[in-house]
Amino acid sequence: MIPGPIEPPARLLMGPGPISAYPSVLRAMSTSLVGQYDPFMTGAMAETQELYRGVWSTDNDATLLIDGTSRAGIESALISLVRPGDRVLVPVFGRFGHLLAEIAERAMAEVHTIETEWGQVFPPSVIEEAIVRVKPTLLALVQGDTSTTMNQPLEDIGEICRRHGVLFYSDATASLGGNAFEADAWGLDAATAGLQKCLGGPSGSAPITLSPRAVEVVQSRKKIEAGIREPGDPSAPDFVRSNYFDLGMILDYWGPRRLNHHTEATSMLYAARECARVLLLEGRDEVIARHERAGRAMLEGVQALGLQVFGDIGHKMNNVVAVEIPEGVPGDDARTSMLEDFGIEIGTSFGPLHGRVWRIGTMGYNARKDAVVTTLAALESVLRRFGASVPAGGGVDAALDVYAGAQ
Amino acid sequence: MIPGPIEPPARLLMGPGPISAYPSVLRAMSTSLVGQYDPFMTGAMAETQELYRGVWSTDNDATLLIDGTSRAGIESALISLVRPGDRVLVPVFGRFGHLLAEIAERAMAEVHTIETEWGQVFPPSVIEEAIVRVKPTLLALVQGDTSTTMNQPLEDIGEICRRHGVLFYSDATASLGGNAFEADAWGLDAATAGLQKCLGGPSGSAPITLSPRAVEVVQSRKKIEAGIREPGDPSAPDFVRSNYFDLGMILDYWGPRRLNHHTEATSMLYAARECARVLLLEGRDEVIARHERAGRAMLEGVQALGLQVFGDIGHKMNNVVAVEIPEGVPGDDARTSMLEDFGIEIGTSFGPLHGRVWRIGTMGYNARKDAVVTTLAALESVLRRFGASVPAGGGVDAALDVYAGAQ
Repeated sequence: MIPGPIEPPARLLMGPGPISAYPSVLRAMSTSLVGQYDPFMTGAMAETQELYRGVWSTDNDATLLIDGTSRAGIESALISLVRPGDRVLVPVFGRFGHLLAEIAERAMAEVHTIETEWGQVFPPSVIEEAIVRVKPTLLALVQGDTSTTMNQPLEDIGEICRRHGVLFYSDATASLGGNAFEADAWGLDAATAGLQKCLGGPSGSAPITLSPRAVEVVQSRKKIEAGIREPGDPSAPDFVRSNYFDLGMILDYWGPRRLNHHTEATSMLYAARECARVLLLEGRDEVIARHERAGRAMLEGVQALGLQVFGDIGHKMNNVVAVEIPEGVPGDDARTSMLEDFGIEIGTSFGPLHGRVWRIGTMGYNARKDAVVTTLAALESVLRRFGASVPAGGGVDAALDVYAGAQ
Repeated sequence: MIPGPIEPPARLLMGPGPISAYPSVLRAMSTSLVGQYDPFMTGAMAETQELYRGVWSTDNDATLLIDGTSRAGIESALISLVRPGDRVLVPVFGRFGHLLAEIAERAMAEVHTIETEWGQVFPPSVIEEAIVRVKPTLLALVQGDTSTTMNQPLEDIGEICRRHGVLFYSDATASLGGNAFEADAWGLDAATAGLQKCLGGPSGSAPITLSPRAVEVVQSRKKIEAGIREPGDPSAPDFVRSNYFDLGMILDYWGPRRLNHHTEATSMLYAARECARVLLLEGRDEVIARHERAGRAMLEGVQALGLQVFGDIGHKMNNVVAVEIPEGVPGDDARTSMLEDFGIEIGTSFGPLHGRVWRIGTMGYNARKDAVVTTLAALESVLRRFGASVPAGGGVDAALDVYAGAQ
């Protein structure tokens, strides 16, 4: 039995990501393909690089895409920047800190972690203390960890890293586009993301940017494939233990030499280009402000429904809130009712928060008034049907007040 | 300056891939997204697995997609199946043999290669001899190597591997869908591909299938991420040196436990699903026959234009032909004229064949009569304008004769 064409049910994706893509991003993906070295294709690659310089706030020449999901970006950064045996420091404040540590460990780094309670972030002084103690080659620090909704402040970390001769890498998958990120001003050496959160696209392409200092490291480990190597091409003895994620090779493919590596995922490139394009057309600061507004409306809405919010709200990402599941309400059944009765997805959670909180996102295309208030109206109804006592219309009113006040 | 929406020029992609995608595959990619654990999404994943069992001719439960380009599939197979220090045998008959060797080397295998002249394939006896001598853990053998257009016969190799206790892996990126491939009947333990050749989709998703024997190897190396690990979950000491490509984890994500790993690239999944769907709707054997016919028409067409064909034609893939560039014709200028004057892309080549042959593909959606004869008409015209003496209409007539005879 061969199934029919793909025909998903209507869904408003208000979880912690993936979220509903911008309509123009979906349209961009149905655009015809061109060849890998077609001048139009290399031109589109160059345009995409320039657009992401705008998204990342950077002048880094080495600004490009990794063909894979957001963790492909993380792995390419870590495996290319870290030599086996190098010390890597990972401050862990949620699941994705554990992921950075895990990927660095797979890259055969000597991994040191410091941890803070879920729902908190690290003060810069604690990170500096650990740097002094561990003396790492690289600091790997998540910006926004969706597992806890926290947004780790990065402003002061680059200067600390520079002072101690440490490379500074951050994963901004959950936060980029919806919260401030200043790659150059904050002294980042490497940063990675994905499309499926505030950038409003599908999972499957990972934007990355590297400082000149990081590029030096990856170039020093360069090895060119035997199948296309020419006399005089380098082959470093400490080459990267991955071909697919070897940033030196990937830079040669994106750079002027256009050395063949993978075949660029054309449709995902179109999607990534469109994500950055709609963001910059609206304006980077305006998009962040839209996320701040939607996030505040959702926060005040759930609070007005009498729900408790998890974690240090002062350090919450704009684009996601963790809501404690009220006593007596079956969390998974309520989520299922949201999905099946209203077509609205909200998120479950991992690890210590599993069964304790829902995560509700307001990001990318869905950082919109109608998406916020529709979700709050549905949530109110579902909570009531599961026996919770909630004020009629309170969540919607509080959210609309935020929007009214912001105008 | 923010550029406009993506707007590529019209292109008929008749190179060695990527090629023009099936229109319904492009449409599938503009379909709305759903959440990662939406029952519709897990259902679409299961459907896609079943569709690819049909494409690969296998009953392997472990039939899925790797989120990345075709070399992501290769790297996941090699790094998950090969332990550091394991011996891997790679028979090299073109660029992609070198690539398998290179990726195995990065996975810290002890790599042994045998080589044959470009344009030839290996007789099974030569491969068996090398197996006896090297005693590898795994044989890594390209099926279709686009760099030479050759299609390595695999029918007898599985039995040889089984007899010597060797895992048998093949990369079928360039050949799958346009040439016979029988994963179970031929005794494959692992096979990988991409969408951008005969499957008629964009680059960016890598179908893979693993035999139960291969699954045992990857399961024995299992490690579950700290962020989602529960008491009793395994953590093998010889874990795979990549998180992204750890097939044990990827199987847990695609399997009934649905353990969170990456966020599946939804739009690429839709594309991959549609590629397999159109193939099975038309019929696997019918699609191969269509590629055989288009390939034969192109071959007889270029020969009727007086062009020499490179390599052992008896072992050529159906879907690509390497045409020697006639004396006196500037190869790159002629390709540019094909592209800019006719909107038709044909391919250049790598390594020893660079500057010596063009590669012309007839694959996926473009394995069609009108695509073949239009390309031949354009090629005739371009060759004449660059001073080559070519018979008027000869290529087109020869190709149309093939189609007439086949009806």
